[in-house]
Order: sequence, then structure tokens, then C-alpha cells
Amino acid sequence: MATDLSYELDRAVDLTQAGDDRWRGEVDPGWTVGVGVPNGGYLLAIALSGLGRVLPHPDPLAVSAHYVSRSEVGPIEVRTESMRSGVTVSTGEARLVQGRRLRVHVTATYGDLGRLEGPTVVNEPRPEFPPPEACVRAQGPVAPEFVRRFDLRLTPDTAVWATSRPSGVAEMAGWIRFADGREPDTATLPLFADAFPPSTLNVVESLWVPTLELTVHVRARPEPGWLQCRFLTRYLIQGYLEEDGEIWDSAGKLVALSRQMARIHD
Amino acid sequence: MATDLSYELDRAVDLTQAGDDRWRGEVDPGWTVGVGVPNGGYLLAIALSGLGRVLPHPDPLAVSAHYVSRSEVGPIEVRTESMRSGVTVSTGEARLVQGRRLRVHVTATYGDLGRLEGPTVVNEPRPEFPPPEACVRAQGPVAPEFVRRFDLRLTPDTAVWATSRPSGVAEMAGWIRFADGREPDTATLPLFADAFPPSTLNVVESLWVPTLELTVHVRARPEPGWLQCRFLTRYLIQGYLEEDGEIWDSAGKLVALSRQMARIHD
Repeated sequence: MATDLSYELDRAVDLTQAGDDRWRGEVDPGWTVGVGVPNGGYLLAIALSGLGRVLPHPDPLAVSAHYVSRSEVGPIEVRTESMRSGVTVSTGEARLVQGRRLRVHVTATYGDLGRLEGPTVVNEPRPEFPPPEACVRAQGPVAPEFVRRFDLRLTPDTAVWATSRPSGVAEMAGWIRFADGREPDTATLPLFADAFPPSTLNVVESLWVPTLELTVHVRARPEPGWLQCRFLTRYLIQGYLEEDGEIWDSAGKLVALSRQMARIHD
Repeated sequence: MATDLSYELDRAVDLTQAGDDRWRGEVDPGWTVGVGVPNGGYLLAIALSGLGRVLPHPDPLAVSAHYVSRSEVGPIEVRTESMRSGVTVSTGEARLVQGRRLRVHVTATYGDLGRLEGPTVVNEPRPEFPPPEACVRAQGPVAPEFVRRFDLRLTPDTAVWATSRPSGVAEMAGWIRFADGREPDTATLPLFADAFPPSTLNVVESLWVPTLELTVHVRARPEPGWLQCRFLTRYLIQGYLEEDGEIWDSAGKLVALSRQMARIHD
């Protein structure tokens, strides 16, 4: 598989083969959310870079990541395993390992979103946001390093935690695209699903909300352009929370659903 | 670990050790949803029966299952692996194997729900349903075999697919408990999360809606008594769907969230 390395992301998830089902990569300091701590969605993108090479279907449909121990910037090994290849779907796992420590365990079911057949019933309207020009761009010296990889705009309603005080509603919403012009595809939707600030910043002040588990369902191939995203937490219970995400493409089509379990650290 | 075999479920998920991290079980015909096809939540309960023995923490917090190939009634092997044991959480995987075929791959992060500390913010009200006595009991000769293991009552609004015609809203809601009086616990909540009829029966007639992936977040230990459940599908797209579930205990506390990806077969 030829890899296009024109874009930051593709360079940051590039792998070289190191053996049967073993791949070497590099956790890039450009994708960190704190001092030396890589973003969870970025680690998942590294895992999918490996799985995309060993599974026969083109699109991740359901991706589950468990964050087992804290990853670091630097060399990383991806151990892939194709567990089953069927006609319509295939399933595999990828383990991200640093030294001898397992960092992330990913299981993924792949399929072909260009060949689906079956009924469609969508009663949920797409939410209306102010356009990107009327939203608040996440930037500045306090933004985590990895935010610079994106053009990320929060709606004024959900950006208030940063400009004045938490809104009281655990929601983050807005628009996102890669800063360098790379267009979204199905392999990058799981990364976008973990790129917004934690929705709980609008109810509890805590910048450190590590992900324990992240599942992304990819439902359609995105058109080029902005992605419209909404992330919502309904149940923050004794420091543990779910964050549910929806991602629509520039044509207004739902392209992914996400849910993560995370924990607030004081 | 002593196992109480007073109840049907505990007998149906009982395992005997067959080696290091290898366990033998039996897929029981009493837990099938069609001719010889075991329920996905039941298979997950078998996997957790194995993981509960090898991980040090008492409660599954986040459980991800990928259904790799179709399981059958009969002998099954559970291959467990403890991937990391930390102070607050531990993570492991379980593989359900029949013959040489991988059936289900499960990854789970365990913790201790009796020792959580942190803020609680829940703005979502619990939905009000008619009481169990005013709901429609799922039973009769056409009900799948595994439904007999439960006392399952659908709200009149969501039971209409069975009694007259689909409601047009992809929702199933109601009450559930084990038929033999076994009380719910955190290891059984993932089973309850896959026990209701598919929510899509209220929009599309198809009894065969196999699960590709199921993730359950266990958020609290349930009190004894009825569980109140709601399952909703917002996006049925070309035959693929998510089904989102919420489970509250008899004290009105949210105890689990679930999401599965499934596919409608005509």
C-alpha cells in the first residue's frame, strides 16, 4: 500500500513493517494533549493505520479502544492480528506496545461502506449551529499542542467555559477540519471523535479527563470539508462519565457516532 | 471462587478450568434467540464469567464485545488474558472459541464501583413508564427461548409492534428481572443490555438483527428488584443501526449505558 505523506497526520501514523503482524511507528510530540501525553484519538489512528494494512475491507465500522496504560512520545510497536475475514465484514485487533508495556488495546470490525444495502430510517434532525465563521476558534498559548493540527471552532454557547465560565450544560459542539487541508475519511473519524475539549469543562473545572474506553461507529464516508460535531455528557457519576459524540459531514450526513468512558481527575 | 449455582444464569455461565487462562463452558440451549443461535448478551456473560476470575477488581466498568462468527449451542472455550492490573482499574480480554473458530472477542476494564470518588452531575431525568403491572409481558409460543429466562414487560407504547403494528418510533422500553428470582448485579447488566427485542421492530419488520459490536458501561451497582430499561435507535442507515440503552435500578439510579451496532437482515 502506497502511503501519501503529504499531510501531518499521515506522517504521524506512518508505520514500517518489523515482522509478521508487527509494525514500528513513532508517537509524535505534535499530537499531545499535555506534557508528553498523546491524544487518545491519535493513538487509535496509529492502531487503525496498522489494522488497515491487514484487514481486507476498506472502512472501519466499529472500533473499540481500551486505554490500558499511559502512552509516551517516542517509538511504539503495533501488533496486529486478523481474527476473521468474512464476505461483508472482517475483524482484527491491534495492540500498541511501548517497551514491554501494553498501552492501548483496539478491536475493530471493518466493512465496505460503499456497498451497503438495506433500509434507512433517520428521524433525528441534524442540529443547527452558527456557521464556522461565527464560532470561536480554539487556539492560543494555552491550547494543547495537538489542537494546532486542527481548525477547531466551538459554538459560542459551548465555548463559554474558556471565555467566561462553564455553561452548566456538559456539551461541546462546533466544527473541525485538519489545519493542513487534509480531507476527512473513514479512518480519521475516530480521531475527530476525540479531538474536542471534554464536554464536562462546562460543568466541572478539570482539564485532565483521561479516556478509559472509546468506541466509534463509522456510518458513512464523509464528503470533503468541515465536520460538524456535538459531544454530550448526561451522566457524570462520582467522577466517571460517558461522552457521546455525533459527527456530520459537509453534506449534512451523519458519518459517525462515538461514546467514551472517561474519569475526571481533580 | 465459590460459585452459587442456585440460579439458571449461574449454571449457564459456569466454567471449569482447563489450563492456564483456559476455561471450559457450555452454551446452553435455554438462552437462544432463534434455532440454535445463542443471545449475544448471554455469550458476553460467559466471557465475563471468565474475566471475573482473572481480574482483581469486582465490577466490569467498560465492556466491549465484537461478534466475530456465529456461535452454536454446545461446548465453548474461554481464553482469558489479564493485560494490566492497576490500583484503580484492571483490563483483560476474553476470547470465546468453538472448535478452532473464534466466536466472540471481549475486552473489559474492571474497577470497584464501591470505591468511587468524584463529582456527580446528572441533569437527565429518569423517564416515567407505566408500572410493570400495566406493561405487556413478553411470552407465548413465538417468544424466543431465552425470553423465558426473564420476566420482561414492554410499555404499551413500545409493545405495539407485537400486538398490532410498528409504532414508527424505533424504541423498546419496559421492565426486566430474572424469572427465577436471581437479583441483578454488575456482571449481569451487560446481559440485560441485550435482552429486549430490537428497537427497530417498531419501524422495520425483521426479527433477525444480529449484533456486530456491543459496548456496555456499568455505572453503579444495582439494588435488588426490577430494572427499568429503554433502548432507542436514532440512525438506521442502509441496514446498519446503533441501539442505545439505559438501565436504571429499582431505586431509580442509572446503573448502565449500552450501545450496540447491529445489521438488519431481510
